[in-house]
Amino acid sequence: MFKKITRQNHDRLIKQKKTISVAESCTGGILSSQLTSLAGSSDYFLLGAVTYSNKSKEIVLGIPTRTIAKYGAVSQPVAILMAQNIRKKTHADLGLSITGIAGPTGATPSKSIGTVYICLATKNKNTCRKFHFTGSRQDIRKKSTQGALRLLCAHLSQ
Amino acid sequence: MFKKITRQNHDRLIKQKKTISVAESCTGGILSSQLTSLAGSSDYFLLGAVTYSNKSKEIVLGIPTRTIAKYGAVSQPVAILMAQNIRKKTHADLGLSITGIAGPTGATPSKSIGTVYICLATKNKNTCRKFHFTGSRQDIRKKSTQGALRLLCAHLSQ
Repeated sequence: MFKKITRQNHDRLIKQKKTISVAESCTGGILSSQLTSLAGSSDYFLLGAVTYSNKSKEIVLGIPTRTIAKYGAVSQPVAILMAQNIRKKTHADLGLSITGIAGPTGATPSKSIGTVYICLATKNKNTCRKFHFTGSRQDIRKKSTQGALRLLCAHLSQ
Repeated sequence: MFKKITRQNHDRLIKQKKTISVAESCTGGILSSQLTSLAGSSDYFLLGAVTYSNKSKEIVLGIPTRTIAKYGAVSQPVAILMAQNIRKKTHADLGLSITGIAGPTGATPSKSIGTVYICLATKNKNTCRKFHFTGSRQDIRKKSTQGALRLLCAHLSQ
C-alpha cells in the first residue's frame, strides 16, 4: 500500500539531505515503521515518538496538559505542537505528526471516529490538514499513515 | 504473523492491569504498531520510542554517548538501558526494547547482520536475549518484533 510513496520520500529525503522526526498517536508506529523500512533510512530518520497517552505527549514532546485539556489531544494546536516539538527536540529539518481517533471507541460529541489531524513542520512553516477517514480501526490507521506520507511527499516535491 | 500473540499479550496486559512502554531501533516502530493494533490498547500502552539515531537514544532515553561508544548501540547494556529507561520515564510496569542490525548494511567485525538484543524490564528484573536472525531486512525486522512479543507473552504467563 505504501511502497511507492515510501520509496519516493526515501529518495527525496536522501537527495535533499533532509532529516525527519515523527510524532504519532493513533497510527501507533506505522508511520515510523514505513519511514524506516528501506535500507539507508538512518541517513534521514532521527526519532519516532509513539505518544499514545496524554502523559507521554507531555513527557516526550513537552505539550502541556492544559493545552490538551483545552483543545483535546485530537486537534490542530496539538498536531502542530507534536510536529514542531519533535522537530526541535531532535534538531531535524522536518517534523511530521499524526493525531486522530482510530476507533472503534474514543469518539466525542464534536469529534467522530476517523477524525485525524496531520501536520508537517519546518523551521518556518506548519502545514496542517484535517481528515475524516472511514472504515475499520486498521483502515483508519493505514489511511492516516498514507495521508502523512503524501503530505511529506508533496512538500519534498516543491 | 503477529495476530495470535498480539491478542494474547493484549488480553493478559488488560487482565493483569499492567502498563508497558517500548523503545525500539531496528524494528522502527513495528513493535509499537503491533502493541497498539487492538482497540483498548490505550489502557496499557503508554509510549513507544523509535530511537533510530544514537543521538535520539541520548535525548529520549538518557543513554550516555559514552555507553554507546563503549559497548555499541547493538549490545546487551544498551538494550537493558533502553528498556529500563523507557519504563522509568513513563512510570510503566514494563519496558520492552529491541536493538539490532536489520541490514543489509551496518554489520561490524564483531556483529553480523541479524544480531538483535531484546530486553524486558520490570522494576526488579531485566530479561535480555540475544538473537541471530536470518533473511532480508524485512524478515529480520519481523522476526525481531515476534521475538519481543514472545518474550512479553512468556513473562505475562508466569
